[in-house]
Amino acid sequence: MSSRVDALSRASEALQRLVRDIPDFPEPGVVFKDITPLLADPDGFAAVVEGLAQAGRDADGAVVVDKVVGMEARGFILAAPVALALGVGFVPVRKAGKLPHDTHQATYDLEYGSAVIELHRDSLQAGERVLLLDDVLATGGTARAAADLVGRCGAVPVGLAVLIELGFLPGRATVGDLPVSALLTV
Amino acid sequence: MSSRVDALSRASEALQRLVRDIPDFPEPGVVFKDITPLLADPDGFAAVVEGLAQAGRDADGAVVVDKVVGMEARGFILAAPVALALGVGFVPVRKAGKLPHDTHQATYDLEYGSAVIELHRDSLQAGERVLLLDDVLATGGTARAAADLVGRCGAVPVGLAVLIELGFLPGRATVGDLPVSALLTV
Repeated sequence: MSSRVDALSRASEALQRLVRDIPDFPEPGVVFKDITPLLADPDGFAAVVEGLAQAGRDADGAVVVDKVVGMEARGFILAAPVALALGVGFVPVRKAGKLPHDTHQATYDLEYGSAVIELHRDSLQAGERVLLLDDVLATGGTARAAADLVGRCGAVPVGLAVLIELGFLPGRATVGDLPVSALLTV
Repeated sequence: MSSRVDALSRASEALQRLVRDIPDFPEPGVVFKDITPLLADPDGFAAVVEGLAQAGRDADGAVVVDKVVGMEARGFILAAPVALALGVGFVPVRKAGKLPHDTHQATYDLEYGSAVIELHRDSLQAGERVLLLDDVLATGGTARAAADLVGRCGAVPVGLAVLIELGFLPGRATVGDLPVSALLTV
């Protein structure tokens, strides 16, 4: 078994063992995927970081991205160690009003209303290859908006890596051409 | 020079080089310490992670904490890699309403009004030694509330590690007996 396949297998096993379902959160009828038991397990957490980092490597293990962009707030917990594992910089996408310097802004739809996220204009250089990172791919609204922000800096979103893809929601269709790497699909 | 002194020296140098001042953010008269250039620099980011991790080791380099607790949201970016570096679990303290399972809650004062933070009740075991982590120690309100939450789980807050301490604010007095490790004091 190659080291890549091995890393993905260990990550998937950790997710199946250490993510717990919380019924009716944040609202009745929704089953929330709680990753906090995974984060509290050092071997499991390390396994998913290495699994996610595969999305930033080619088949020979060479790093093929220049930056990792993490989405506030749970995305930060994963994107920061993945950036360190790949030896590239970490860049945060934040909710409106949190980043102190000049930003690009993008708006995306929520079930009720909309939300605004921001990216520092000087955080990415033209042509840089960017791996987007979040914990869960659900409707894909945040990821698509983040990819738009990366493009407005002149950089290139080359992939989205997540722990869990909710396959019953249209996330993959929403992000369009952006390749998605999910360690687990439910 | 010992490896510990060396790690702290590299971390301090990275902070002095890569943190930028943003005047009048989030409000007139405040100078915000923007760590995003540091996070975007892989060598600088790695240096501060190793510097912060020293707060979880004894003089011989042995790990002396059982968990790292990070405060939402910038604290997550630092606490997650520090936990991985120490080989211990990561536990998030979050703003109210974000954690899906049973929580302890603590309220602390802001300049105008107050805020509530939460910690999962089952995230720490009785007697576990906990390192608290955040980016900046300012008034100390968040850190003190987080230490209270840790204690209510029966665990023991043994230290607070931050990148930057604002020495002109009473953070160190607010957190009382909790030892503070700051990589840089301004």
